[in-house]
Amino acid sequence: MGQAIVGVVARGGSTVELLGRADAAMPVTGDIVVLAVSYPAVADVLTWRADELSGKIVVDITSPLDFVVPADSSAAAEIATALPRSRVFTAFNTTFAATLLSGVVGEAELPTAVLITGDDADAKSVLADVVTAGGLRAVDAGSLKRARELEALGFLQLTLAAGEKIPWTGGFGVIG
Amino acid sequence: MGQAIVGVVARGGSTVELLGRADAAMPVTGDIVVLAVSYPAVADVLTWRADELSGKIVVDITSPLDFVVPADSSAAAEIATALPRSRVFTAFNTTFAATLLSGVVGEAELPTAVLITGDDADAKSVLADVVTAGGLRAVDAGSLKRARELEALGFLQLTLAAGEKIPWTGGFGVIG
Repeated sequence: MGQAIVGVVARGGSTVELLGRADAAMPVTGDIVVLAVSYPAVADVLTWRADELSGKIVVDITSPLDFVVPADSSAAAEIATALPRSRVFTAFNTTFAATLLSGVVGEAELPTAVLITGDDADAKSVLADVVTAGGLRAVDAGSLKRARELEALGFLQLTLAAGEKIPWTGGFGVIG
Repeated sequence: MGQAIVGVVARGGSTVELLGRADAAMPVTGDIVVLAVSYPAVADVLTWRADELSGKIVVDITSPLDFVVPADSSAAAEIATALPRSRVFTAFNTTFAATLLSGVVGEAELPTAVLITGDDADAKSVLADVVTAGGLRAVDAGSLKRARELEALGFLQLTLAAGEKIPWTGGFGVIG
């Protein structure tokens, strides 16, 4: 997923810096920070980087299993609580990596839509511009409260692909 | 939604009987019973009909608001608890009525997919056959535990249409 998101952002002409576990000493310099790690690893990143993420747009891409996060909450809500001085969004958690790279979903070649949830309208617009510049469709899916539904959709989509009901190049397309 | 489901079932050559509030005295005769009412009204139906629904395939089509059902549960799970002698499924809760009637989603004309969750494999196959005979695609989305995610998807889709992000003839298509 990290490489796929790098591909989208770079297509739009923005610069991307990848920071991995080995780069703990390197500072975060960008305005938008994508937490392109699985949900259990997010806590580590937040421990290392919480101060640095202050004021930044932080993008959660996870769809954790339903028992990992409190049922009435979401990974995004937990991250927002841990980062009260950041502007936290969810995006890219309802799209498979292949559809981000190709820009289309399935053989129908429907344009890939990135659902975005978050509470800061200006920052959401910045994030949507990056998605659009990368050749994808950005859809405002509401406030960060709706992250719960996006995570459920992402998780359901994973179970369908794992169960071979849909291919990893397909999934849920946003139509209309 | 009731009329749309009647349309699908009738297209497949099956017989449909509509029972409304005024028909409380009329017995349920079919093998598959679709609870085509909003979630708050389901409780009334179960009160009137619980004994009659014993042994039947019962289809929940609701996507209740997130605060109506306990967060770690689902409308389907609540219904299954109330009907321990029925085989409870969810279906038609991730499709708008217009896409059931037309058989396609949006201007892309993607075939309408009906996601089905439930625990009885034989009954699920019967239900999938009705959907397929009606000209739609049936997708097995797993056990009734996955109803939670289907309800979230349905609810998200309602919020997107209500917010004019997608038309009521569109929505989430299952691609691939």
